[in-house]
Amino acid sequence: MGFNRKDLLGIRDLEVSEIEHILELAQSLKEINMRAIKKVPTLRGKTVIHLFYEPSTRTRTSFDIAAKRLSADTYSIAGSTSSMVKGETLLDTLKNLEAMRPDVFVVRHSASGAPHMLARNTEASVINAGDGMHEHPSQALLDMLTIIEHKKRLDGLKVVIVGDIFHSRVARSNIWGLTKMGAKVTVCGPTTLIPPKIELMGAQVGYKLDECIADADVIMVLRLQKERQQQMLLPSLREYSTYFGINPQKLTKARPDVLIMHPGPINRGVEISPEVADGPYSVILDQVTNGVAVRMALLYLLAQR
Amino acid sequence: MGFNRKDLLGIRDLEVSEIEHILELAQSLKEINMRAIKKVPTLRGKTVIHLFYEPSTRTRTSFDIAAKRLSADTYSIAGSTSSMVKGETLLDTLKNLEAMRPDVFVVRHSASGAPHMLARNTEASVINAGDGMHEHPSQALLDMLTIIEHKKRLDGLKVVIVGDIFHSRVARSNIWGLTKMGAKVTVCGPTTLIPPKIELMGAQVGYKLDECIADADVIMVLRLQKERQQQMLLPSLREYSTYFGINPQKLTKARPDVLIMHPGPINRGVEISPEVADGPYSVILDQVTNGVAVRMALLYLLAQR
Amino acid sequence: MGFNRKDLLGIRDLEVSEIEHILELAQSLKEINMRAIKKVPTLRGKTVIHLFYEPSTRTRTSFDIAAKRLSADTYSIAGSTSSMVKGETLLDTLKNLEAMRPDVFVVRHSASGAPHMLARNTEASVINAGDGMHEHPSQALLDMLTIIEHKKRLDGLKVVIVGDIFHSRVARSNIWGLTKMGAKVTVCGPTTLIPPKIELMGAQVGYKLDECIADADVIMVLRLQKERQQQMLLPSLREYSTYFGINPQKLTKARPDVLIMHPGPINRGVEISPEVADGPYSVILDQVTNGVAVRMALLYLLAQR
Repeated sequence: MGFNRKDLLGIRDLEVSEIEHILELAQSLKEINMRAIKKVPTLRGKTVIHLFYEPSTRTRTSFDIAAKRLSADTYSIAGSTSSMVKGETLLDTLKNLEAMRPDVFVVRHSASGAPHMLARNTEASVINAGDGMHEHPSQALLDMLTIIEHKKRLDGLKVVIVGDIFHSRVARSNIWGLTKMGAKVTVCGPTTLIPPKIELMGAQVGYKLDECIADADVIMVLRLQKERQQQMLLPSLREYSTYFGINPQKLTKARPDVLIMHPGPINRGVEISPEVADGPYSVILDQVTNGVAVRMALLYLLAQR
Repeated sequence: MGFNRKDLLGIRDLEVSEIEHILELAQSLKEINMRAIKKVPTLRGKTVIHLFYEPSTRTRTSFDIAAKRLSADTYSIAGSTSSMVKGETLLDTLKNLEAMRPDVFVVRHSASGAPHMLARNTEASVINAGDGMHEHPSQALLDMLTIIEHKKRLDGLKVVIVGDIFHSRVARSNIWGLTKMGAKVTVCGPTTLIPPKIELMGAQVGYKLDECIADADVIMVLRLQKERQQQMLLPSLREYSTYFGINPQKLTKARPDVLIMHPGPINRGVEISPEVADGPYSVILDQVTNGVAVRMALLYLLAQR
Repeated sequence: MGFNRKDLLGIRDLEVSEIEHILELAQSLKEINMRAIKKVPTLRGKTVIHLFYEPSTRTRTSFDIAAKRLSADTYSIAGSTSSMVKGETLLDTLKNLEAMRPDVFVVRHSASGAPHMLARNTEASVINAGDGMHEHPSQALLDMLTIIEHKKRLDGLKVVIVGDIFHSRVARSNIWGLTKMGAKVTVCGPTTLIPPKIELMGAQVGYKLDECIADADVIMVLRLQKERQQQMLLPSLREYSTYFGINPQKLTKARPDVLIMHPGPINRGVEISPEVADGPYSVILDQVTNGVAVRMALLYLLAQR
């Protein structure tokens, strides 16, 4: 089937065959990152603009490395602090940059749907690098690639996503993607951090970590933003950590070969203990490595149209 | 004649034949930006330093794209926030950077004449990317290229520049350039925003938009900085918009094939209405596209000396 | 002997033969910066990450130019303002970036020893670009290269380092390096700015500039941070300047062919007078030029392992 879209806006829209195509391509491109000369000329003469309206070093650097290893030229525009936003609409910023003839916009924005609006208004490709609490598709793709590398499949696995589901675009993209691919997804967290009707997305819901984790093949631990406490969504970080922080003792309920994942950056001692983050089941750094490969695949597919 | 200068500091200094040479070169380089592989090796191994003492995303990105599409390496130094300025003079910053052997400095500074001082003190080329209220020559060149593309000539055209002429380096560079090339330039705005003796530069002056616009071939709308109201130069933005904001009704006095230009970023509903900005006479995005081409031409001419 | 280390963390660790190897390589690479096409493909496909937890435009730009002239791809991460540090340990930031497969980290950090800790925890190479008050090895190497170019030797020279020795990693790296290479080093400054037991590093100590400077072959003038006055370490900048500021009159005690050096940025009229900074004995800008060459040599040696 391949992948013939102009944009990559979310996992929800994708066919299973498209996800498989991206993951296979990422798997084959990954090897470039292991060479002594980590660069191929594939996207020479292509222009990639990182348009980030939320601060991000990690994701932006991952996309930037992916682009340059394919020989694209990259430009980074911090929307929030830029002179471009003084009285200028988001759409005008886009149209102005489009007039400089880029091939791909990599967009992060605090407003859900912003990349979709931009995609409808430009002939360039748009990759959603995170929009509000909506989607973060490249994260879900790198998570799926990481699971497949370790488990050889997604179909039939039990994946538990633990933490602040409510505010997490990572959780949403993963629920869409993993259920499409045949995994059983359980979300688990305090009631204040689980959105109502999340089960309509195809996930099971649980509020007790022990029960959720039982027989889990994969545990995705979400970052807990410290500001949730000020927002009265949590009594305290310590209480959160007591009930939902993943430590070796709690892991005993999971399958013995459980994978521990985290989108980063981790809060050691809050949502994950150092013993688990650095332990034998952790594939957190594999996720980062696969992030570059998945982004190479996305840029390759979109910039070469 | 060609172009044999070390620097591009202003339009005022240029001969007509030099302007023609730059515009012809820009026209021929523009095509590179439309290719699938938007890159030529012309400036490979050349070093371009963006030295910006005023914030600018738009102009800096345009120069940066121009440089990289010619294969130059670029470096961006934000003078105002840089550790280089702690107790260091502008000239010392220049001499230090010059010692690293760049080919071109692209300089923006709030002090009129700063790029000229720097140019006298370095063997590298200096491009003025905007100095105070003085000149912004690459903007005037891209404006002239855009007019020529649509009108096939500059000679004999009536060009009206509307708005805050007083603070505008864009207006000054365009007055120098357009009058050199044979166009008739009228500046138009509230009395508080028209500098005294501007007619000595060769422009007509008007204070009533209807009269100024009559038979105009081109209307250049300038951005109105909102801080002008705090500076007591305007009673209110709404009043400014009523008298000088360009909307479809006011356009009826101009020629039916009038071009609408704006250096950006636009304030929709202040100096220009959305109907005009997005309307059939607007060439605002053509200006942005031509900006990359003009800057490629300038970098080509200067970096290859 | 050559140079077979994974990292360049300090001058203190280096053998004389290693210093000689780096300086000879820098001398031969320097010529690339004088060409019309200042670029060689040596490090094509290599990834260099600048990880700067202290602001620095000068040193970062020098490393960046060095890397790109060798065709490496570079990425710049401002640790202090980055989202990466929100609740993330320095080591986690390193491990995450390492998972993206860089070849070299160029690290600046306010904590002495931070680059050493990072180097022990990554397979990538680490270059210390300044750690606290500890070392700044590339600065000492470029200083040594500059002296050798002008004096043809280091052995037997009298080098006087003047100013705030206490807070200076430049002074420490130079004391280690110059004494290893056979120079006699004297440090000179107000008692509050000379660390106790500095003579154990192999330097002579003096508190009177006239006596220190007598027969000096080289005077290294250190930048005086203006905040030292607030810290009660100086009665006033004017008094500092009177006693320790280098001006033509004070230079009469030195050798007639004395070299004047400064790591920059200079405070004109504080630690150095304009007549001396711009005078015939000043090699301050040669230092900057040699900085690029030395950093090319370091990147060449480490990234090609």
